[in-house]
Amino acid sequence: MQVLRLDDTTEFTPGVMKRFFLVEDSPFFKIINFNLDAGVTFPVHSHDLDGELSIQVLEGSGFFLGADGAEIPAGKGDILISEIREPHGVRAAEKMRILVTIAPPI
Amino acid sequence: MQVLRLDDTTEFTPGVMKRFFLVEDSPFFKIINFNLDAGVTFPVHSHDLDGELSIQVLEGSGFFLGADGAEIPAGKGDILISEIREPHGVRAAEKMRILVTIAPPI
Repeated sequence: MQVLRLDDTTEFTPGVMKRFFLVEDSPFFKIINFNLDAGVTFPVHSHDLDGELSIQVLEGSGFFLGADGAEIPAGKGDILISEIREPHGVRAAEKMRILVTIAPPI
Repeated sequence: MQVLRLDDTTEFTPGVMKRFFLVEDSPFFKIINFNLDAGVTFPVHSHDLDGELSIQVLEGSGFFLGADGAEIPAGKGDILISEIREPHGVRAAEKMRILVTIAPPI
């Protein structure tokens, strides 16, 4: 049992996506906080593995990205649910914090 | 691929814990939003199963509860990570929204 504090990982780096591994030693899920500077894209990607992930917008806004150029508006409190093998990504319109949970971890 | 909106499940019911199943058909995780009215306790419990869960405070504050009467202050942005077989619970000091992810789902 441990407590993580999202207030501890609020740092942004200009022009890039900063990554904080919050849970990386569990056999059941991985939890990562990404902070995307305004305009940054987390490129669409996928992995040929069984599993599912959630991408929760903690702060800021932008778009969830999918296959075939799909763009879904994404604001605070919105959560994308995607299979790991489905193409998925994120683009930050403004500074954006997201929390990604991947089960099982990859 | 689907998008959930936490703004759609902001309802509280006086004196109880209201439950919204956000993801319940995945073989990989279950995601539930609980809204606890002020003073409500999600009692300490555990299940004799392999797996892990996260409890993220979305709004409000209270305490994460554990074995032997443990109480850990829990505010917005705090996340409890617990094995499913470890005793865990939550008490709301004020109205409190939490997001629970359980992997694998139980």
